[in-house]
Order: sequence, then C-alpha cells, then structure tokens
Amino acid sequence: MVQYKITYFDSRGGAELCRLVLKAAKVDFVDERLTGEEWAKRKEGMPLQALPVLTIDGSQVICQSAAIARYLAKENGLMGANNLEALRIDEVMEMFSEMVQRELIKIYMVKDNEEERNKLVKTFVEGPMKKYLTFLEMRLKENKDGKGFLVGDKLSLGDLAIYDGLSLLTALLVNVDPFEGRSLLKEHQSRVGSVPEIAEWVSTRPKTKF
Amino acid sequence: MVQYKITYFDSRGGAELCRLVLKAAKVDFVDERLTGEEWAKRKEGMPLQALPVLTIDGSQVICQSAAIARYLAKENGLMGANNLEALRIDEVMEMFSEMVQRELIKIYMVKDNEEERNKLVKTFVEGPMKKYLTFLEMRLKENKDGKGFLVGDKLSLGDLAIYDGLSLLTALLVNVDPFEGRSLLKEHQSRVGSVPEIAEWVSTRPKTKF
Repeated sequence: MVQYKITYFDSRGGAELCRLVLKAAKVDFVDERLTGEEWAKRKEGMPLQALPVLTIDGSQVICQSAAIARYLAKENGLMGANNLEALRIDEVMEMFSEMVQRELIKIYMVKDNEEERNKLVKTFVEGPMKKYLTFLEMRLKENKDGKGFLVGDKLSLGDLAIYDGLSLLTALLVNVDPFEGRSLLKEHQSRVGSVPEIAEWVSTRPKTKF
Repeated sequence: MVQYKITYFDSRGGAELCRLVLKAAKVDFVDERLTGEEWAKRKEGMPLQALPVLTIDGSQVICQSAAIARYLAKENGLMGANNLEALRIDEVMEMFSEMVQRELIKIYMVKDNEEERNKLVKTFVEGPMKKYLTFLEMRLKENKDGKGFLVGDKLSLGDLAIYDGLSLLTALLVNVDPFEGRSLLKEHQSRVGSVPEIAEWVSTRPKTKF
C-alpha cells in the first residue's frame, strides 16, 4: 500500500485540506509537523522551498497544497463522478485560493495590529466576502437545492474545501460571523462537520490557532 | 457535440491557457472578446463578476481560469495518463498561479511607471524568478532528461502552462530574458511552440501586448 507523509508546520494552514481528504478517505498518513528550527534546516532541500509537501512512498516529494489535495481526492474517489463534477469542485477550490491570496493574506499579515486588522476586515466583509459567499450559496443551491453536498450525492473535495475555507474565515475574522444570514452555508458546514471521520479528526487534531 | 465559448477581454491574460488547450486539442470554440463597455453591462450577471468564464452548450457558465483549463484538458486527453502525471501537471499550474498572484501582479500594476517597474523586476529576477525557473528545470529533467515534455511522451496542460507562463514573463519583464542560461527551458519552449496547432494559433491569434 502506498505510504503518504504530509509535511507542514504545526498548524492547519495550507496543509489542513490535504489532511481532511485523507481523514475523510480513512487513509493512514504521517502527519509531520516541523518546528521553525527543523524547517530552517530542511528548507533548501524542498521543491520551491515551501511547505506543505507530500512524500509518496518515501521518495517522490511534491509541493503545492491544492495540487496535492486534488491528487489525494482523485485517488480516493473524492473528486466527483465525472469531469463536470470535478470542474465544479475545482471552481470552488480556485475561489478559495483567490480569496486567500488576494484578501486573507493581507488580514493575516496585520493580525497583531488590532486597528489595522479591523479596518481590513471591514473592507473585506462589506465587499469581497459578500461576493464569495453569495457565489458559494449559488453553487450549493444548484445541486439538490443546497440540501446535500456540492456535487452529486456524496462528500467531495469541494465540500471539504468549503468547510476548511470557512473555518479559516471564522478563525481569522474573530468578531465577524461569516455564516450570519447564510443558512445554506451554515447547514452545509454542519453537514460536513458531522461526517464521522471529519468530526473525529476535528475533535482530536492538534489544537492550533490557524 | 459540446459547444464551448470562452469569454474574456481582448488579451491573452487569464484566458490564453484555456484557448491553447482547445487549440492543441483541435476543438472549435467561440473566442468571445469583450470591450470594457460590454463588460460593464455584463459583469453583474457573471459568477464572481470576473472573467474568463467558460460557457458550455450555451447554458452552464463556469468561472476560474485554472479550473476551466484543467477541465478542458481532461476532456481532451491533455491531463496526463494517470493521477500521478496529473499531479505533476497540477504542481506546475499552481506554481505559475502563485508566481502571478504573489509577484507578477505587482509588476503589472506599475507597468507604466518605468522606475518603479525596474525596481520590482530586479527584486523578482534575483529572487523568486530564480527559484521558480530552477524548479521548472528540475521537473522537466525528471522526465526523459528534459528532452521531451513535462510528463509521459506527449504534450499536456503542463507544457502549455509552462509555455504560456514563460511567454507572459517575457512580455512583462521587457528587458530581461528569462531563458538566459536556461537551455532546458528554452528548448522546451521551442518544442511546445513548434507543435503545429500551437504554432498556427500563435501566428494568427489577435496581437495584444499581454
């Protein structure tokens, strides 16, 4: 059987979606979490000098978290039933990637400067966040009127991306509830969080702020 | 037969990779290019109010260029022969997405301010660009010693992503040649550019700066 190791820091961050995929698929993996000191020693030898990386069978070392998440999802039946379903999943993945790169990184960078943080959060919540969450609700509604999962009739990487992305939003925005007035998203979040493998992982995983 | 329309502005930008995939696959599509005025009228009705979008059979409208490119590649046998090859392709796709979001957007934003542009280009070329191009050469070398394509023995979305990404780099950096001292990349670029369908499209497509 293939051996997976996910190497990252001791946080959810860019690695958590990959971990959620493997947990949802009940696939064992080594959850390697580096200290800053360990990372400093290993950084040079890593593709693109960045984490997370996936190590397959102790040899192939692959970077880029979204690529890893999609690979693990495909290998484990979590990438939809056909190319059109995979496209819907991918569209949501890319939406979150855009939101993180364009918006959330700016907020994360000033997280210890309360005044600056509040200003950026206000701008984000009133503009881009509204656009992104409205889009997600629209896509959820297009499949079984939003009462199930993003595509088809079972959990996929798309649902895990929404779950992970909105959890990050909740952690980062502190005093803003992204689910306010968004019952479809709220129910979806709870639906994904209630999947036994996800519920168990979330209650037992290392507790970290992000 | 399925009908595709790619809607974007009159530039290569975020849509060109999708166009290259369809051209490489010899699949007809409507290459819709909006003026700023037309876009202003249609923006509100678009998912995430952004371009490009792919319209499938006049009904499904999907956004996020990288998701669209992967979908079109899968449908046309350009996403590798298996999940591991697709992972290698995806890793390169994500690398370019990161490079554009983190680095190139900043340079593009100041493209008309020569002094500011030269400063940002210098920082990029000496740091991140080196890291990204070294990574690409490493990955190319891992398949047939860099004498063929990124994965397997035929053209894939990965090669088109490299071709499109390095063309963007060349257009944006103006006085810097990203291929200098990078014979593997240079040969790969010419290999992809010589694929008859690509060569024909590149010589006949609308001429735009980016």
